[in-house]
Amino acid sequence: MTFLAVQPVDGQNYGSPIHEHSENEVRDLIARAAREAQNLAKLSPQKQAQLLRAIAESIESHRAELITSACAETGLPEGRIGGEITRTTVQFNLFAQLVETGRHLRVVIDKADPNYSPAPRPDIRRQNQPLGVVAIFAASNFPLAFSVAGGDSASALASGNAVVAKGHPSHPNTCAIVEGAVKSALKSSELSEDLFSVVQGVNPQITHWLANDENVKAIGFTGSENVGRILIDIASKREVPIPVFAEMGSLNPVFVTSAAISERSLELAKGLVDSALLGSGQFCTKPGLVFVPASSDGFLAEIKDHLATLKVGPLLSASIAKRYSAAISELSSVGAVKVLAGITNEAGFGATPTIFVTDWKTAQSHPALLEEHFGPTTVVISADESQYLSIASSLKGQLTATIQGSSKDSVQPLMQLLSEHAGRVIWNGFPTGVAVTEAMQHGGPWPASSTHTTSVGIDAIYRFMRPVAYQSFAQDVLPEALKDSNPWKVEQKIN
Amino acid sequence: MTFLAVQPVDGQNYGSPIHEHSENEVRDLIARAAREAQNLAKLSPQKQAQLLRAIAESIESHRAELITSACAETGLPEGRIGGEITRTTVQFNLFAQLVETGRHLRVVIDKADPNYSPAPRPDIRRQNQPLGVVAIFAASNFPLAFSVAGGDSASALASGNAVVAKGHPSHPNTCAIVEGAVKSALKSSELSEDLFSVVQGVNPQITHWLANDENVKAIGFTGSENVGRILIDIASKREVPIPVFAEMGSLNPVFVTSAAISERSLELAKGLVDSALLGSGQFCTKPGLVFVPASSDGFLAEIKDHLATLKVGPLLSASIAKRYSAAISELSSVGAVKVLAGITNEAGFGATPTIFVTDWKTAQSHPALLEEHFGPTTVVISADESQYLSIASSLKGQLTATIQGSSKDSVQPLMQLLSEHAGRVIWNGFPTGVAVTEAMQHGGPWPASSTHTTSVGIDAIYRFMRPVAYQSFAQDVLPEALKDSNPWKVEQKIN
Repeated sequence: MTFLAVQPVDGQNYGSPIHEHSENEVRDLIARAAREAQNLAKLSPQKQAQLLRAIAESIESHRAELITSACAETGLPEGRIGGEITRTTVQFNLFAQLVETGRHLRVVIDKADPNYSPAPRPDIRRQNQPLGVVAIFAASNFPLAFSVAGGDSASALASGNAVVAKGHPSHPNTCAIVEGAVKSALKSSELSEDLFSVVQGVNPQITHWLANDENVKAIGFTGSENVGRILIDIASKREVPIPVFAEMGSLNPVFVTSAAISERSLELAKGLVDSALLGSGQFCTKPGLVFVPASSDGFLAEIKDHLATLKVGPLLSASIAKRYSAAISELSSVGAVKVLAGITNEAGFGATPTIFVTDWKTAQSHPALLEEHFGPTTVVISADESQYLSIASSLKGQLTATIQGSSKDSVQPLMQLLSEHAGRVIWNGFPTGVAVTEAMQHGGPWPASSTHTTSVGIDAIYRFMRPVAYQSFAQDVLPEALKDSNPWKVEQKIN
Repeated sequence: MTFLAVQPVDGQNYGSPIHEHSENEVRDLIARAAREAQNLAKLSPQKQAQLLRAIAESIESHRAELITSACAETGLPEGRIGGEITRTTVQFNLFAQLVETGRHLRVVIDKADPNYSPAPRPDIRRQNQPLGVVAIFAASNFPLAFSVAGGDSASALASGNAVVAKGHPSHPNTCAIVEGAVKSALKSSELSEDLFSVVQGVNPQITHWLANDENVKAIGFTGSENVGRILIDIASKREVPIPVFAEMGSLNPVFVTSAAISERSLELAKGLVDSALLGSGQFCTKPGLVFVPASSDGFLAEIKDHLATLKVGPLLSASIAKRYSAAISELSSVGAVKVLAGITNEAGFGATPTIFVTDWKTAQSHPALLEEHFGPTTVVISADESQYLSIASSLKGQLTATIQGSSKDSVQPLMQLLSEHAGRVIWNGFPTGVAVTEAMQHGGPWPASSTHTTSVGIDAIYRFMRPVAYQSFAQDVLPEALKDSNPWKVEQKIN
């Protein structure tokens, strides 16, 4: 069986027929990955870093092909796809930089101490070890940076795991090119190509086969709360439950103060609309709720005027376009909601950018206004500024929460409250655009993510390792990273 | 309603009637804890360390009372209880040492960089923050060091969380004394006593009330795989799922080589039996499976002779005693199993230390031989040494796995394989006795624990915090630990 990609720009098929993986094939790929996993796990940090850099180079060498394929399959502009290729290679290179220091192994050596309290202690040495095979579910909205060799796969490979990645059926040709690039880097590094495989298909059972296979030791997932719940349910009912690192929904609320509007009304209006419409509103960090002070009529007029000039690219898939148009109809039908519109894109999976304006009382009685809607829309809610704290405390977990204010505002109470509900709190910025840095936190209280980890930035690597302590082994037997002679020259904390 | 403790030594009631908490009372204590949580969270690391030391001192000041109560309620000897009190205070003091450095906040500061690739980066600063209220379920087998103010509660408090702990009904008077000690330390530190509460009762619904209360943000649990699964199920079905850090079953297999037997047969036989019988065999790290080479008749005779001289203290509770005696009957009835016995303790919840000897083939066809049985028993399995690798790879996840060998053995392949199945791998030692050190790992693949964390040692603190990133905030607004001026003098990694 095969399936075909569909071009968002015109709804036509694109590329080669893609092989739909059967259950046997999926299980066979996982078994092959499991057989080879130890060969990756045992490499020195230096060799592992070399592999990560080789993958980055190999992906880079397919830049032209990837741009052609990903632009066609996602309808995203060339500049965005080019940036994503760069981000994908940067991610591998950042992990390489970390891995070659061995710092991610978090080696701690407690030497034997007969005088230790409450009891003499033996020699105990701990390091992080990879898990084996990790299953990664690619996101639709980042065809490279969060797809089959995106941040999740990069962090799983960087920590020494074999990866079986489920390609997203909305960009299968792009996934196939990336698969080839990674396999070719494995081959040139004299490692088995079985260490990285992509499974493809539109059959929803593939998700189950991956999540319940006994050789799969952890799951990385980016997608909806519904599918996240299904994965967590499958994973926790296994004979041996496994962790699911799911990054799911977020409304990314923005709180605008009246002082901010007084200081930079037009800049703010444009910035907010642009952030909500960026990538056709298909970022997990899209500002989906914007709180503005009551009596912000001038500011709302600026939002309306700016929006009226804007048209966005088509949505990523027919199903996203359908859900978007259903959501817009539903929200439009709520009384006491003003509907602002941009320019309709009629081609393919095109859509009309739409912003809803309402008040907090209306929003509270219409739950759909407080839900995430993928696509170029946001909900602007007017409220008394004195209500911001109670509004913030009523919100679910978020990837980000933003305050747009002035240096005259007393911002600390709101910032602190938002930090209890979000993984990242932003001052006078916009939530879209997630820097890939060490301090980045991309993940927050449920439903933003299922665990207290990050899926962006180098700390993502710690999701796919577990600590193992070695007690009283002789130097020549210990794993290399734990030896006193430290042949791998990794960072060791010695007590 | 009230209930009474029962003395293992004679089955008689002990101590005061203990108030059984109702649902309203449990929810009220959680709500109170939630209201106060922020007052603990916002303390400086130095003040938090002071509180932890004050708790340790307060517990120490109740030493005499605690020894009387815990010895009566558990039947454990005074030396053991005294050691546990010391371990409990050591745990608080170790966390104090860590917390005052602020290292646990894992502060990372990425300063703004307009030249950062793939895109300019804003100023991003990350720290770990406490979760709010953590529910801790006390273990029966450590009436102090893993009870209401044991390692789990200490790590939750040390990371700045309020704690509501469920006392184990087999040592309720001890739990009440500890509760008073912690509350008095809170009071003397000018903090609300609501930050730490103990709920007590024999009603199994208490577990549900704690696990599904919306103010509870994480669970720490030590107990059986069955109850662990129930907690994980409740926690994952909540509107807002929460993490469950469960430490559950482990068989702690020991692999003995023939070279080890040649070198130190008697010492080994005694050491193994003593480790299996320590604390009446009620440690989570008890060696529950011992693999010996075929034709180890002399060694088995030494085990038999040593066991015959030993008597253990009573079991912790009537239910443990009942399950132990049922398990012993079941295993004794398997054909092809030799039953070795120690001296029967007839008092109260006394039991007969019993060791089963069989071969690998028999063990494989009788699953009960490969399950955890709480109490003074272990299963010795003879196998060809060449089978050790395949046996090891067939085992479930373990807290520990041990090799008893000789420097003549090629130990690396077995050590590496065991490291894939256990949290701690031990050479020529015994698994009982878990040093409270930085490199310690107490937790392993399922069912040893539900996550890749440790519940013993200072890294246990990271279970109860989550990272939050602050983007572009002004210096005077940022949390203290993230300021350039670093008023708390915490460890900051600055990029």
